Amino acid sequence: MFQLIDTRNGLLSDLLTRVTDIGRSLDSVIKQREKPLLEQCEGLLDKNGEAASLAKAQQLLKHYDELNDEEKGVFFLEILANFGTDNAALEKAINNWKSDSSEANARVLHFASEPRSQILLRRINQAPNGTLALVKMRADLLRFTRTHPELKILDQDFAHLFLSWFNRGFLKLQTMDWGTPANILEKVIAYEAVHEISNWSALRQRVADPDRRLYSYFHPALGIEPLIFVQVALTDHVPGAIAPILEKQREPLDPEKATTAVFYSISNCQTGLKGISFGNFLIKQVVENLREEFPKLETFITLSPVPGLRRWALQQLEKPDAVTTAEHLELIRDLERARLEGTLTSLLENNKAFKNLVATYLVSARSPRGGATDPVSRFHLGNGARLEDIHLQGDVSENGLNNSWGCMVNYQYRISDIEKNHETYVNADKIITSSAVKSLLK
Amino acid sequence: MFQLIDTRNGLLSDLLTRVTDIGRSLDSVIKQREKPLLEQCEGLLDKNGEAASLAKAQQLLKHYDELNDEEKGVFFLEILANFGTDNAALEKAINNWKSDSSEANARVLHFASEPRSQILLRRINQAPNGTLALVKMRADLLRFTRTHPELKILDQDFAHLFLSWFNRGFLKLQTMDWGTPANILEKVIAYEAVHEISNWSALRQRVADPDRRLYSYFHPALGIEPLIFVQVALTDHVPGAIAPILEKQREPLDPEKATTAVFYSISNCQTGLKGISFGNFLIKQVVENLREEFPKLETFITLSPVPGLRRWALQQLEKPDAVTTAEHLELIRDLERARLEGTLTSLLENNKAFKNLVATYLVSARSPRGGATDPVSRFHLGNGARLEDIHLQGDVSENGLNNSWGCMVNYQYRISDIEKNHETYVNADKIITSSAVKSLLK
Amino acid sequence: MFQLIDTRNGLLSDLLTRVTDIGRSLDSVIKQREKPLLEQCEGLLDKNGEAASLAKAQQLLKHYDELNDEEKGVFFLEILANFGTDNAALEKAINNWKSDSSEANARVLHFASEPRSQILLRRINQAPNGTLALVKMRADLLRFTRTHPELKILDQDFAHLFLSWFNRGFLKLQTMDWGTPANILEKVIAYEAVHEISNWSALRQRVADPDRRLYSYFHPALGIEPLIFVQVALTDHVPGAIAPILEKQREPLDPEKATTAVFYSISNCQTGLKGISFGNFLIKQVVENLREEFPKLETFITLSPVPGLRRWALQQLEKPDAVTTAEHLELIRDLERARLEGTLTSLLENNKAFKNLVATYLVSARSPRGGATDPVSRFHLGNGARLEDIHLQGDVSENGLNNSWGCMVNYQYRISDIEKNHETYVNADKIITSSAVKSLLK
Amino acid sequence: MFQLIDTRNGLLSDLLTRVTDIGRSLDSVIKQREKPLLEQCEGLLDKNGEAASLAKAQQLLKHYDELNDEEKGVFFLEILANFGTDNAALEKAINNWKSDSSEANARVLHFASEPRSQILLRRINQAPNGTLALVKMRADLLRFTRTHPELKILDQDFAHLFLSWFNRGFLKLQTMDWGTPANILEKVIAYEAVHEISNWSALRQRVADPDRRLYSYFHPALGIEPLIFVQVALTDHVPGAIAPILEKQREPLDPEKATTAVFYSISNCQTGLKGISFGNFLIKQVVENLREEFPKLETFITLSPVPGLRRWALQQLEKPDAVTTAEHLELIRDLERARLEGTLTSLLENNKAFKNLVATYLVSARSPRGGATDPVSRFHLGNGARLEDIHLQGDVSENGLNNSWGCMVNYQYRISDIEKNHETYVNADKIITSSAVKSLLK
Repeated sequence: MFQLIDTRNGLLSDLLTRVTDIGRSLDSVIKQREKPLLEQCEGLLDKNGEAASLAKAQQLLKHYDELNDEEKGVFFLEILANFGTDNAALEKAINNWKSDSSEANARVLHFASEPRSQILLRRINQAPNGTLALVKMRADLLRFTRTHPELKILDQDFAHLFLSWFNRGFLKLQTMDWGTPANILEKVIAYEAVHEISNWSALRQRVADPDRRLYSYFHPALGIEPLIFVQVALTDHVPGAIAPILEKQREPLDPEKATTAVFYSISNCQTGLKGISFGNFLIKQVVENLREEFPKLETFITLSPVPGLRRWALQQLEKPDAVTTAEHLELIRDLERARLEGTLTSLLENNKAFKNLVATYLVSARSPRGGATDPVSRFHLGNGARLEDIHLQGDVSENGLNNSWGCMVNYQYRISDIEKNHETYVNADKIITSSAVKSLLK
Repeated sequence: MFQLIDTRNGLLSDLLTRVTDIGRSLDSVIKQREKPLLEQCEGLLDKNGEAASLAKAQQLLKHYDELNDEEKGVFFLEILANFGTDNAALEKAINNWKSDSSEANARVLHFASEPRSQILLRRINQAPNGTLALVKMRADLLRFTRTHPELKILDQDFAHLFLSWFNRGFLKLQTMDWGTPANILEKVIAYEAVHEISNWSALRQRVADPDRRLYSYFHPALGIEPLIFVQVALTDHVPGAIAPILEKQREPLDPEKATTAVFYSISNCQTGLKGISFGNFLIKQVVENLREEFPKLETFITLSPVPGLRRWALQQLEKPDAVTTAEHLELIRDLERARLEGTLTSLLENNKAFKNLVATYLVSARSPRGGATDPVSRFHLGNGARLEDIHLQGDVSENGLNNSWGCMVNYQYRISDIEKNHETYVNADKIITSSAVKSLLK
Repeated sequence: MFQLIDTRNGLLSDLLTRVTDIGRSLDSVIKQREKPLLEQCEGLLDKNGEAASLAKAQQLLKHYDELNDEEKGVFFLEILANFGTDNAALEKAINNWKSDSSEANARVLHFASEPRSQILLRRINQAPNGTLALVKMRADLLRFTRTHPELKILDQDFAHLFLSWFNRGFLKLQTMDWGTPANILEKVIAYEAVHEISNWSALRQRVADPDRRLYSYFHPALGIEPLIFVQVALTDHVPGAIAPILEKQREPLDPEKATTAVFYSISNCQTGLKGISFGNFLIKQVVENLREEFPKLETFITLSPVPGLRRWALQQLEKPDAVTTAEHLELIRDLERARLEGTLTSLLENNKAFKNLVATYLVSARSPRGGATDPVSRFHLGNGARLEDIHLQGDVSENGLNNSWGCMVNYQYRISDIEKNHETYVNADKIITSSAVKSLLK
Repeated sequence: MFQLIDTRNGLLSDLLTRVTDIGRSLDSVIKQREKPLLEQCEGLLDKNGEAASLAKAQQLLKHYDELNDEEKGVFFLEILANFGTDNAALEKAINNWKSDSSEANARVLHFASEPRSQILLRRINQAPNGTLALVKMRADLLRFTRTHPELKILDQDFAHLFLSWFNRGFLKLQTMDWGTPANILEKVIAYEAVHEISNWSALRQRVADPDRRLYSYFHPALGIEPLIFVQVALTDHVPGAIAPILEKQREPLDPEKATTAVFYSISNCQTGLKGISFGNFLIKQVVENLREEFPKLETFITLSPVPGLRRWALQQLEKPDAVTTAEHLELIRDLERARLEGTLTSLLENNKAFKNLVATYLVSARSPRGGATDPVSRFHLGNGARLEDIHLQGDVSENGLNNSWGCMVNYQYRISDIEKNHETYVNADKIITSSAVKSLLK
């Protein structure tokens, strides 16, 4: 899903190199600094410690903050090793349940099997701003899961708790506009993951132009940190390219005359909340809000990138899918050659073969785990949207040409079809498309 | 703990009668109205239903709201019966773990043993105001656990989730004063559980007098519903009676001259949050806030009821503890006789034998589950407070005479001793007292 | 106008006695305490004093606050005597203007004729909360104008400045409801001048019932002090009596079904703002707000007292107007006799002669200064409303019987007629009435 | 005073050309569009019109907004001509007062001499956002007073009312920081008149760095429009140059360690409030706020430009003052030559003759109307500050070199001396200086 594009790619690659080194040195190095940290963790779980648990949680987080990256990696591995399930208690609970499989005994077993790490995280969460600290801690942890896949087990504990804490019922939808505090608005610049915002003038357009809206989810425990935001353009037509929407010199539309709401950018803000899905709810709630504010709106549609297209296409050259034809492969080579020569844009106009390739990727290809191959497609189809149209010249910026040879697509949200579409996609693994897209496949 | 005194006792006794009747009729009656409700529950758990889960949760809560009391009882029993653990999946996870007791397999087992009722509750929580609805639903459920103890198992699911959702880190401390909205202030009147607030003038004194403070915890998902509040009097001495504090015609103290902060009432507001303890955190955070606002404060102390004293004493008459003497028993009979004859107050002045009885109850007697016998005592000693003093004429209102023959006590919170006191109480089962109280036992 | 009923009548009568005494002693007593106050006033006007004017204004207000009533009276008389117009400067400006009647010289004359008291008041207004202090100071001053009419001249200075400071453009309209802070709501109880609010339950009904609204004007410099508020009942008919509106046990109407907005109470809150008229603007703005919130509302009407009726009628007995007939005089004697005997209510049912008397008072009688005789009538007719209907049993409370033998009336506000009505009333001195009221006069 | 530097100089020069043209054509052109506007003005003053005055004021402002610049000029001249004083009424009031010079008759005269334009402005002020519209209208008017000095008479009416409406008591002091809404913060960029803020990063430093503060006055009727703001740097020394304060890459000081608060920029925001002085109050209130927040602050001082120095010096070349010596004149020629050759900075280091010149300008020279010659100096000395020090290399930016050959000065505010200094300056026309500055004059 395109929201998952990490906004801090540069940082990440640097870190990965270092993390690999950490991996190598991990077992041999004697850990001094994180030792007291583990003792603090034990102290926080200690029954005696309850009276001071708040202060202890606070100290623990302060200590964690002072760790360098290597030490953090070691800390996570130690937590995994030392704060797991109590096997003896679990064994006993299993025997108990085996002898009497009552609901009561099942609960006993369930609670007995809870890893101590989960209890630890709940205790840490008592500290002031503890939730935000844990979200950042998980962002750290996720970096290490690449070199130390065993840490994915620990990550499950974070994910399980976050799923509960960041339950839809706790989220607050907020519109951001030019009256929003600057310290919140600057986060929009920082977290925008789809179409970069270069400065405050560009930001002002996105939040304050009369035909633009920006909606965001906030969580009470995360303060001014947004979780996810969506940017909307109110238009009188379905757009096929992003440039006119982001144009600096444009005449805004009177929003009362708009017929169409275009979701042209959705950005997840917190790496540490990976896998906790808010986008589904956000889009539906925004659709409802917009319908109430502008009853004349008829069409709710995205203008979305196809971030996986070129990567998939290049893989086809090496090991083609069943759905890929020889013509496809030749076209892919042509596109890639043109891209390197800087002549790509001339190939995009009304190129039926290319449209067929994109439609094949989006509709016919399948991910090994089932469902659509493209991450953005998976997100919107899973939400009950329909693949509506394909635009070859959607994003001819350098970034757009590099990701998908300039191509963008629309996904449409029709309130009345959302549930039906979702079920068909999930159960029948069928990509719902407009007839226009269908005809491209013939 | 005295916070647990139910503020709706009247209501409760009526309900209990009816609930018992429900119990009788339960199995034979054909349930029509709650059937669709159970189907809605299944629909909410259905994978296909995700796209519409919000709307479904909302409908389900609306449907639940329309049930009468009997139907609610049946609903809970049905949930217990139909939304338990998936035994087959659990069996498989057990075998898996037995063959390889890895942390990963332990997690698999933990998640496999999760009852479906927990997932159901999390889904319901997505509805707007879902959290408050679930808190009220649990208040309903708790009423039925008296006649149907098996429902305590279902209650564990609520309690487990609430422990996570109402984590200390999510709570907001608020001062209530005369500038607080009326719809919030009126809840103070409704929820005050210790010393009744008869009208808005009395309320005004408690929140707006310069030497009074009222602090409350709120949770973002519960809106204007308080969770718990504590009332504080700023004084220049440690008080031994409640009447002067609640006196209508009194000269308020300049708070800058106060040396002592008296916690004279703590009330839990939500029956549905029973067992989710906030008082411990609340008192400590309030102590910190007060110290910052009034650096001259030296003493932080409660003026507390002894709600279990008379009940315990009357039990002694039938089956005395080891700590109870013949003199004690005679005194208890005298007190009870005087209470019935309305001459009790004359017995209270400087009655050393009675003070010894109270000290014996609070310090020497022990609950069958360990720890102090008195619920209020358990609460404050568990928080790390010390039993400071005993006042025989602390509350000579009718209510006070009935509960404890008029007796009240002080528990003192000394920041530097809290953790040590807590540990001694928990580990050594030792009641921490002042030397004044100790001397009463000789 | 009925808003001008002083809410502190009790207080007032006590004061009047004392003020009269002050009058007697005024010239003979040696004033010690207010002397420095006058020096402070001079200091505040002193050019050198500018650098410290804020602090000086603050001290002056503090000093004023410590004066007793007698000293305040003397203070006002001294200000009048010592802070008047600079006659020499004025003389010069007059000569100047006489020799050249230019606009520039007219301005010079205008500024030269400004009394120093006005400059003084503007300087005092610089103090923190100075505006509220001056409003209260004028309330003091107004009490003395009864015994010392010469102080009316000083009052003109206050009135002139307040007219500018409390310009419509500075006022904020606020709805009060049950979410309004208690310290603001309690002012509604204090300031309600028409139908007393006995306690917080009664207040809750008036602001929080779904078919009730309370709108108030606030001024930024007066903080939480309201200037004026109007209470509205949303109904499905035009009411003829106040009791059903204030009824404790009533079934509220779904406001979406309301056809009629009834202004049943308008109260001015600040005695010190006497003569600065807000009611006109308030009613029109509230009509606009209500029309936007409830587009189905068709009728905007008052249910108003007739506070001058009985007083006027009793005067007729002594010295009848041209419009008063012998039948009228006899009726007046009957009504008054019945009132004293407590049998008045039996006379009210369908009493055509009485209706004719009320119509005569409201439509045919004229104030010596022109316009309607009744103060409430003057207010609404001056705003452009129409006299709509007369109800003999409108307010049969003791208060209602004493003021107007129980009678109430409706004035209707029709947006499209307001300006025309206002002009006809002002220019042609004609009372605009419905045909129903007209027919009562025949 | 340096706040009066117009922030829209560019705009202004364009306009001035056009306005002069307007002047020429004014009498001959037939005015069509503003005619109805004058009728609207009459309508607003009409007694009959009261009922609809709000709507009329709103229409009038809308109409005014649609005028082009020429039409606005004509409009003001027409208002001056047609909405002046009622001469007949004034004549009568004069005769009245002549025959009896009572305070009452003086008031009658005062009110009779009020020009109708003042009443008109008060009525316009009733419209929603009327105050802001009038402030902008006066900004328009002030442009025309250069070509049509007779309009200064009309400007007096605006100034008189604004003095009352923008009374110190109505102003709200606000701190701006990074949590301030963006639409307010962007006004800081727009209105900063002393040291330009080039972008949002620079703004962020000025409001959000821990050792920086920005205070602003707001008026309730002007919404988010600031009236004036002052920028403060918290330092551990008295700075002699502006560059280090505005440096992008600097290590902020822990504000708790600051000893000195430096007022390095004060900007008036509203051209239309010219002559309504807020700076005096602002500085004193900010000093008080800072003292409360940081009790360790000892020194409150400005770092100020000397905007009139070069202009004055060049005038000396043509017509020297008594205080100017031949050495001064030679130095002035040297400085000016070096400025043109771009070698000025080399002349600034430790140049005693130049320091003497600056001291002579600031201390010995006098304005024709009395008081200091330099506008910034007039402002701070009038507020009770003392001229503390002179820095030749204070602002070596192009702007700084052009205005004052790079020179800046400190004015110090000592709470205990403010009133005394102010009086000495105002009464004795004496410039209060430090001994350091005094020694420069020898």
